Amino acid sequence: MAATEATKAADEAYDVIVLGAGPTGENVADRAHAAGLSAVLVESELVGGECSYWACMPSKALLRPVTARAEARRVPGLKDTADVPLDVPAVLAHRDEFTSYWKDDGQVRWLDSAGIDLVRGHGRLAGPRRVVVDGERVLTARHAVAVCTGSRAVVPPVPGLAEARPWTSRDATSAKAVPGRLVVVGGGVVGVEMATAWRALGSSVTLLVRGDGLLPRMEPFAGHLVTESLAEAGVFLRTGVEVREVRREAPGGPVTVLLDSGDEIIADEILIATGRAPRTDDVGLETVGLTPGSWLDVDDSLRVSGVTGGWLYGVGDVNHRALLTHQGKYQARIAGAAISARARGVPILESDRWGAHAATADRLAVPQVVFTDPEVASVGLTAAAAEQAGYRIQVIDQDVAAVAGASLYADGYRGRARMVVDLDREVVLGATFVGSGVGELLHSATVAVAGEVPIERLWHAVPSYPTISEVWLRLLEAYRG
Amino acid sequence: MAATEATKAADEAYDVIVLGAGPTGENVADRAHAAGLSAVLVESELVGGECSYWACMPSKALLRPVTARAEARRVPGLKDTADVPLDVPAVLAHRDEFTSYWKDDGQVRWLDSAGIDLVRGHGRLAGPRRVVVDGERVLTARHAVAVCTGSRAVVPPVPGLAEARPWTSRDATSAKAVPGRLVVVGGGVVGVEMATAWRALGSSVTLLVRGDGLLPRMEPFAGHLVTESLAEAGVFLRTGVEVREVRREAPGGPVTVLLDSGDEIIADEILIATGRAPRTDDVGLETVGLTPGSWLDVDDSLRVSGVTGGWLYGVGDVNHRALLTHQGKYQARIAGAAISARARGVPILESDRWGAHAATADRLAVPQVVFTDPEVASVGLTAAAAEQAGYRIQVIDQDVAAVAGASLYADGYRGRARMVVDLDREVVLGATFVGSGVGELLHSATVAVAGEVPIERLWHAVPSYPTISEVWLRLLEAYRG
Repeated sequence: MAATEATKAADEAYDVIVLGAGPTGENVADRAHAAGLSAVLVESELVGGECSYWACMPSKALLRPVTARAEARRVPGLKDTADVPLDVPAVLAHRDEFTSYWKDDGQVRWLDSAGIDLVRGHGRLAGPRRVVVDGERVLTARHAVAVCTGSRAVVPPVPGLAEARPWTSRDATSAKAVPGRLVVVGGGVVGVEMATAWRALGSSVTLLVRGDGLLPRMEPFAGHLVTESLAEAGVFLRTGVEVREVRREAPGGPVTVLLDSGDEIIADEILIATGRAPRTDDVGLETVGLTPGSWLDVDDSLRVSGVTGGWLYGVGDVNHRALLTHQGKYQARIAGAAISARARGVPILESDRWGAHAATADRLAVPQVVFTDPEVASVGLTAAAAEQAGYRIQVIDQDVAAVAGASLYADGYRGRARMVVDLDREVVLGATFVGSGVGELLHSATVAVAGEVPIERLWHAVPSYPTISEVWLRLLEAYRG
Repeated sequence: MAATEATKAADEAYDVIVLGAGPTGENVADRAHAAGLSAVLVESELVGGECSYWACMPSKALLRPVTARAEARRVPGLKDTADVPLDVPAVLAHRDEFTSYWKDDGQVRWLDSAGIDLVRGHGRLAGPRRVVVDGERVLTARHAVAVCTGSRAVVPPVPGLAEARPWTSRDATSAKAVPGRLVVVGGGVVGVEMATAWRALGSSVTLLVRGDGLLPRMEPFAGHLVTESLAEAGVFLRTGVEVREVRREAPGGPVTVLLDSGDEIIADEILIATGRAPRTDDVGLETVGLTPGSWLDVDDSLRVSGVTGGWLYGVGDVNHRALLTHQGKYQARIAGAAISARARGVPILESDRWGAHAATADRLAVPQVVFTDPEVASVGLTAAAAEQAGYRIQVIDQDVAAVAGASLYADGYRGRARMVVDLDREVVLGATFVGSGVGELLHSATVAVAGEVPIERLWHAVPSYPTISEVWLRLLEAYRG
């Protein structure tokens, strides 16, 4: 039955029911279907999920012109582009196009062509292998139900904040106009990316951070370099501050942000980017013995722990393993394979490190690119995380600007790279690159980390001259001494 | 003894003598010195070699502004940069700066600090382990002599060509003014890169190619995509043509190029980029039983075959294994390690695949980036080369533009990727990427190919979303079916 023809019927049975039609849910359904299982997606919002409409796609559509302009300005012969301002309406229109104007027809067509059913409405578990949509339509799953409902931005209980109708990541990526003054609360990826984008589009931006720096989960130099460049772009950064109260007197009017220091900041919008919560508060977890609103505890095959019969999966943000679209899709590939193997009665070993049914990369090789200027790209363990995990490590740092390919790429190139080596196995545990053009370089490290390629063999992986990737040679030379 | 203090003396003895102070020679000397051996470089031209003054550095300094401008033009909000012409004097001045104004003081200072001696002059072998510089100064080598004299452009014996004083790669990378009309002969890397650069700097360019397409050693689609973009840039391409005669009536005057078709092309300069010859014609090969002017036949430790005592090495272009700066430097690292191991009497196995003393990547994992627009990046074996070598292969092609990261990177992105898989071992034998921004992506494939990472494990190397590197996921999905 094709997606658009899905009709109401009592107790419709599927092999696999997927709650949530974001990239993760779509991939679970696709994998199951490709393995010969019937699959249905239940979605109450837009098919395509957060990523397509309010995260990766629109944010990168806003950020790419910023990066491209910054890079052109760093090249001799193009300095004049420094004086060409970004065409803001063109950038926003482009962003709108990349979100398909917040319509999901294209995604629905894809489901249709892929042979995956779609049920629009709010799905809730109603006991084992049973999902009720909008309180009336009942779906049953022969093999598995996968909860792929993702996460939402948390608005902390600051007095007056909710009433001030703050921006969350959804508003920051979909806003139709440039606020004159924008306060961004939070120094994680959303905070720094949106500060970068809206500053370049013309806002005066103040970035408020509770801790002492930006991008706290990454190597410290990443936050330092981004701090430096945001300052140069004219972003006001205040670290070590808490928002005590927020007031917006009139809808559409200015917002006053009171800090614990007693300072007040007046702005036109406030973006809250301080954390995420799982969208599991209203999916019927209590009907299967789990706690509504909790992150789902899963094994490496993405199966939820403690559910009798092992038919429930939690894939993507909901399991809190790695809140990234690509990692959710990866989990979906693994979960889809595990579901179909179990459906066929094939025994699988979910604890088999790097096996076909174990999302091992979630623990050892999660890549992430932050599309700021400079870009930040990291994979695997930071030095701190590796030490905490008990590895005996060596940390190698390198100034990326010292590489010919970098200095050719941009005048006044600034960047830094770190490689974390496991001294016992002589493999790379993690790598971080900061600088222009490192976003595509990251995958080399991801292959090295996930592939556990010995340092000795990496010595034979020759970086092409003169590219930025020659930083690898410098890192390896430094390690080998 | 420091470089600048090197003085004349009869029969000066070193552990290692290196002929040619390009990047390859410098690295051989550096590795030997780091291993505790004394080393001397003999150089008759500039220390730093072809790459620093007449190849990689100046060509990329000319090309980077072209690419950066092209990329800015493909981003919404920056279309106005389409109307900002390249500032030609600024680009040329930048190129001059990157070649250090064709002075080698910086490189000599580096030798000095590294503790490597330099003898300026023309070095020739004079029997085993003996080098005579400029016919008078005699150097002897306790352990090894390495010939790292590189290659030069070949000017074919076309009537009138030599007399017309054509450009070779040296002139094309160091020219002080933009020729109004430029004829480029040759569709390899030098030909397409210099056609790209000079066209963007304002020349009318005609590219003449003997064969039926560009970049003939790479996957065919690479040449097709570059052909398409050169045409759009306004380069006239003529394939299947031979230059029959060249005439330049007066120095500085126009040059007339006669084709075998009978057509005549009149231009201001003609660049010959049809091939390279080893600079071994005057290094005394005949004194050790070898043929002057020949490419040196070496084993995987870079030791020249058939020389009694095994003291002679041929590293870099001279051995014709891979005429690329980074590959010469790689060979230098391997050769330096082999020389020092042998000097210590440590037995080495030069045939040990991927071992510390075998330049295995020369045969299996040579990377190359062509800095055209779109960029072309390849590593390892092409489908044709893999088949010819007897591998049982599967070829996977993918439209790079179908990847979200690519469409976000540039409007109207055009690109293509190919992965060549060894079906017996399920590893990647080669990969080619064409498109904007793929230059840094290449190293991921280089790590996969040199690391022989199984496809099964590459499945866990998650590309960060939304980057162009997600093309890996598409390639792997297509392979796994």
